[in-house]
Amino acid sequence: MIKVGIVGGTGYTGVELLRLLSQHPEVQLTAITSRKEAGMPVAEMFPSLRGRVDLCFTTPEEAQLTECDAVFFATPHGVAMAQAKELLAAGVKILDLAADFRLKDLAEFEKWYGMPHACPDILSEAVYGLAEINREAIKKARIVGLAGCYPTSVQLGFAPLLSPKSTGGKKLVDLSYLISDSKSGVSGAGRKAEVGTLMAEASDNFKAYGVKGHRHHPEIRQGLSAIAEGAEVGLTFVPHLTPMIRGIHSTLYARILPEGRDVDYQALYETFYAGEPFVDVMPAGSTPETRSVRGSNALRIAVHRPQDGDTLVILVVEDNLVKGASGQGVQCLNLMFGLPENTGLTHIALLP
Amino acid sequence: MIKVGIVGGTGYTGVELLRLLSQHPEVQLTAITSRKEAGMPVAEMFPSLRGRVDLCFTTPEEAQLTECDAVFFATPHGVAMAQAKELLAAGVKILDLAADFRLKDLAEFEKWYGMPHACPDILSEAVYGLAEINREAIKKARIVGLAGCYPTSVQLGFAPLLSPKSTGGKKLVDLSYLISDSKSGVSGAGRKAEVGTLMAEASDNFKAYGVKGHRHHPEIRQGLSAIAEGAEVGLTFVPHLTPMIRGIHSTLYARILPEGRDVDYQALYETFYAGEPFVDVMPAGSTPETRSVRGSNALRIAVHRPQDGDTLVILVVEDNLVKGASGQGVQCLNLMFGLPENTGLTHIALLP
Amino acid sequence: MIKVGIVGGTGYTGVELLRLLSQHPEVQLTAITSRKEAGMPVAEMFPSLRGRVDLCFTTPEEAQLTECDAVFFATPHGVAMAQAKELLAAGVKILDLAADFRLKDLAEFEKWYGMPHACPDILSEAVYGLAEINREAIKKARIVGLAGCYPTSVQLGFAPLLSPKSTGGKKLVDLSYLISDSKSGVSGAGRKAEVGTLMAEASDNFKAYGVKGHRHHPEIRQGLSAIAEGAEVGLTFVPHLTPMIRGIHSTLYARILPEGRDVDYQALYETFYAGEPFVDVMPAGSTPETRSVRGSNALRIAVHRPQDGDTLVILVVEDNLVKGASGQGVQCLNLMFGLPENTGLTHIALLP
Amino acid sequence: MIKVGIVGGTGYTGVELLRLLSQHPEVQLTAITSRKEAGMPVAEMFPSLRGRVDLCFTTPEEAQLTECDAVFFATPHGVAMAQAKELLAAGVKILDLAADFRLKDLAEFEKWYGMPHACPDILSEAVYGLAEINREAIKKARIVGLAGCYPTSVQLGFAPLLSPKSTGGKKLVDLSYLISDSKSGVSGAGRKAEVGTLMAEASDNFKAYGVKGHRHHPEIRQGLSAIAEGAEVGLTFVPHLTPMIRGIHSTLYARILPEGRDVDYQALYETFYAGEPFVDVMPAGSTPETRSVRGSNALRIAVHRPQDGDTLVILVVEDNLVKGASGQGVQCLNLMFGLPENTGLTHIALLP
Repeated sequence: MIKVGIVGGTGYTGVELLRLLSQHPEVQLTAITSRKEAGMPVAEMFPSLRGRVDLCFTTPEEAQLTECDAVFFATPHGVAMAQAKELLAAGVKILDLAADFRLKDLAEFEKWYGMPHACPDILSEAVYGLAEINREAIKKARIVGLAGCYPTSVQLGFAPLLSPKSTGGKKLVDLSYLISDSKSGVSGAGRKAEVGTLMAEASDNFKAYGVKGHRHHPEIRQGLSAIAEGAEVGLTFVPHLTPMIRGIHSTLYARILPEGRDVDYQALYETFYAGEPFVDVMPAGSTPETRSVRGSNALRIAVHRPQDGDTLVILVVEDNLVKGASGQGVQCLNLMFGLPENTGLTHIALLP
Repeated sequence: MIKVGIVGGTGYTGVELLRLLSQHPEVQLTAITSRKEAGMPVAEMFPSLRGRVDLCFTTPEEAQLTECDAVFFATPHGVAMAQAKELLAAGVKILDLAADFRLKDLAEFEKWYGMPHACPDILSEAVYGLAEINREAIKKARIVGLAGCYPTSVQLGFAPLLSPKSTGGKKLVDLSYLISDSKSGVSGAGRKAEVGTLMAEASDNFKAYGVKGHRHHPEIRQGLSAIAEGAEVGLTFVPHLTPMIRGIHSTLYARILPEGRDVDYQALYETFYAGEPFVDVMPAGSTPETRSVRGSNALRIAVHRPQDGDTLVILVVEDNLVKGASGQGVQCLNLMFGLPENTGLTHIALLP
Repeated sequence: MIKVGIVGGTGYTGVELLRLLSQHPEVQLTAITSRKEAGMPVAEMFPSLRGRVDLCFTTPEEAQLTECDAVFFATPHGVAMAQAKELLAAGVKILDLAADFRLKDLAEFEKWYGMPHACPDILSEAVYGLAEINREAIKKARIVGLAGCYPTSVQLGFAPLLSPKSTGGKKLVDLSYLISDSKSGVSGAGRKAEVGTLMAEASDNFKAYGVKGHRHHPEIRQGLSAIAEGAEVGLTFVPHLTPMIRGIHSTLYARILPEGRDVDYQALYETFYAGEPFVDVMPAGSTPETRSVRGSNALRIAVHRPQDGDTLVILVVEDNLVKGASGQGVQCLNLMFGLPENTGLTHIALLP
Repeated sequence: MIKVGIVGGTGYTGVELLRLLSQHPEVQLTAITSRKEAGMPVAEMFPSLRGRVDLCFTTPEEAQLTECDAVFFATPHGVAMAQAKELLAAGVKILDLAADFRLKDLAEFEKWYGMPHACPDILSEAVYGLAEINREAIKKARIVGLAGCYPTSVQLGFAPLLSPKSTGGKKLVDLSYLISDSKSGVSGAGRKAEVGTLMAEASDNFKAYGVKGHRHHPEIRQGLSAIAEGAEVGLTFVPHLTPMIRGIHSTLYARILPEGRDVDYQALYETFYAGEPFVDVMPAGSTPETRSVRGSNALRIAVHRPQDGDTLVILVVEDNLVKGASGQGVQCLNLMFGLPENTGLTHIALLP
């Protein structure tokens, strides 16, 4: 059994980790920390866990995290990087659900997260946690900065068009003008008391936000550029808040270049993702629904080329709390510990 | 034109007052205060008012409320009672949407609202703002404590069974065992940043709350007892949070006594509310929907006696922000200034 | 492995059975029928099942149901009773999610379902599928009529007050005046094209329905009377439609009789349900949320006695498609085949 | 008073017309037809109209529509064109909310609506009902084909970039590669019993649809091309279903050409829409919310140029049933009868 601790378990990625890990056959949950709620049974805050998770929140001091095999950080940005050094020294593997180990460019990190990076050396070692792209590196990693929710959907949606392994080195689409029109359910904003995500504000309503700039923009650009093996990528990313709890739907637009006019894009995607346990390239003509992945680690993609014109429209859905966060974390944990990648991740989506 | 000021306009009852009063043909909005947001255009916080309300929030000092004809308090409990004396002295009429002037029993007020009452003399003068019950008193009032949202639905729902004018003095139902199972949309919790009413918490979910005791319980009992002209009333009141924005649905249960067995309850209700501009007794067998009053000042009632047995089931719907708060306030304002009662209140509900 | 067939799998209880049974370690799904959709892959209608359920819908003829060990009917009322005889003769055990085998009184059945009963002899053999009440009978049953969704919540909510085993034969509450104010999400109406459950009609809205009479009323009365070992029970049952997908919340009211005044009701409930794998009596003062059981087979109960008065308020939540239908079915299947009762039913609720 | 009849009033655009017209100071509602519901009081189907609209549905024969001054068609496609000739001959002005008089190209009409056009001569006379673009023609029109819901948002969103009056004849953006990623609430699908828009299917869910081709695509292209005074326009249009009742949010993307690099787009939009009663160009940096126009005829636009790059992002919101349908109809009616354009259309949006 892998001994796993969770730092900061009072948010939505925390309770989702608890749901997944408490049913994981190879994991033993040993501690979950929350300085503020120390002493409270986890199941008191999250009654869905009554009878299933007996842990109480503890202080970080009591948690003895250095005796874990792996520790998840489900914390605000900045926490994981303060504790990483000690844990790594103790031989603990780290999976960070926040952004501390995502952006490789220190200046970008400071610009978007408003703090200097506490451990650039560890950052340079950290592996970006997007299993379909970085599987081999994750297997060997001591520390993984898990991909963000929007970035997961956008990168996996564009990857087959950008990766030279997929395109044979051809320029299929205009990399300087990619568009991601993304929509997220409100759980993406976290379990924080804020007026903007009150039900009376956010339900029966739809709006864009962060159009000027969003923290996930540099992460996506970094990832797409890496997938394109260094090619510069121009991306317009517009996130929207949609009145549902879970789910991200990214609608991606790419302009086909002359070299890409005769490509069978359905086949391209199916080939790229053949054998992937969690990426489902749907039949041509499909329109994936977010509910088809609600509570599951699946990500579904449909490829459209309207009127056989020069625009590709890629539709991607995921559960932002599972494949976009905690499920992705468990997937990486499995890789890091040599388990079958889908261990503990076989839940079927809840529909309706 | 009646010059009207609003104290505390950043909540839902505040924006609803602005919607109603800015379209009211006899009202001139002169000021709206918010110490915290002073200087901000109201329409910046509530873009629905762009082009329709030009006011900015001001400090109470700048608002010169003593020059108004009437002032609404859309504030937390305790604010109105601190300012009432000065305004009354200046000849300003007061309508309080909070609870400062609802409960006549000082001990009850202190118990439920956790503060001593600042002006018991004014409290004793204040009229309870439920127009269908207190119309004549409201016409002459200088200060009105508007009925709460749940209490409006419960009192108007039970009134024809309790009022001696209606019953001819007979004991139709068991007054010691009345039940109100009430359901409210989330706007009833106000525009406060709280985890419990986040959309990710409150949508696709249903729960009871305040079963042990709710501030509206003593208010309802006081009101029912007054309607029953002093008879003691036993009430079980269970409020629930239902995943919608606006609307209250109270399901009322009363046990018929032998004296009440041969009464035509449909006729009783229709007679009691004949001529009321805002109370709609629906045809026998109806099941009113909250959306049928969304955004309107109407309150709809349906009377059921399942299987012609000894239980009466009364269904009542209202929009908690209109008939349950701001619309009721405008209705009382109209009465206090000798206007037709429905002036500025003729909006048709938004359906769907 | 138990070979299981499903008749009529295109509704919500059908897809929920597929979700549960396809993850059940002791079940082999062999056929799912739908005359209308014969030939269509199940996963085409329900994309949540892509990659997890490979079956296609088949005609009943092709399904060879007589070779199954057990057959579920997830069909409209009237279908199961037409096929029961042949299946039983072939040694197949039957679990009916419709109402064909719930009501023991033939006249009641005909009155509420508008058809004569096709096999009264089988009906008299059928066991009512509510495991916590009928566990031993279910273990030996050849045919089970599964309890309805509302009836499950109301019966398990009232049982400790009514069962002589629990009360020691005392009359704790007034059996002639029980009230169940029940609220259901819209999936309870099924996957039928109807105007009333369109999202534009049913969301942001709340209403009662079936106040005059509802098919679950006689079922609940029959069940409560059986639990009370034959005592007559008077029940007012008012169902409501609440704007969420899954979940039932029943708020139950009972009037305490003199014999019941000194009872510790929290202890009474905890004792009655001690050891039950799926019934969770929450700590005193709790208010269970429907989302705490979303997707799980748990049913949670909280016991309240407001102001220590003479009214008991029992709050009950369940997922109408799991404990209220398909999960209950799997629970009974486990009992009928000698498996641990929670086999394949250990899903943790999806929260948020 | 203008005598107005409505053909087909049982859908959402019908009830919305009733809400608006029954409060319109210059309109007398004389008839509303529904062959299926003839004899039923309108307020029985739509209880929001109780006490406000006394009409019953009538058969078309009884309705004596030829005695009206104006007739609205809130019918399925194909109905208006069958009755237009007779009404026009009787001097009745026609406003069609369906698509019969939108597309000028007969072949396109037949392709998308699957029927030949019944009166090409009347079609050629009909004016496209988008007041901000066609105001003068509408004033003189006998028959108006009202713009569709999506098309209104997309055309008004792009118009300032395309209209030579606005651009001074410059090519500001690449007309061959416009993108509209549009999201609609479920009321856009109408009040038809269909599985796909059941609440249990459509709530807590998000999906695209009609990616291959949507009836509004040719309408938008025709309109944009007309605004661009004949220039060819390439458009990718992807509609999505979002879990709310009312509202459309179109996110528009245009690539800036060299000639357009130094343009102040905020000023361009503000100038183009200066004086428009219903189009609100919001301050730079805004992100309009659909609820800010819920129930009102306003359409709000925000102009973004992320990172001062070459992509313009235009955000547009409207209420699909008001500015996208019935409100637009009343706006055109006002123009056709010489009334102030905002007569009867001054409702403030319902927020929250």
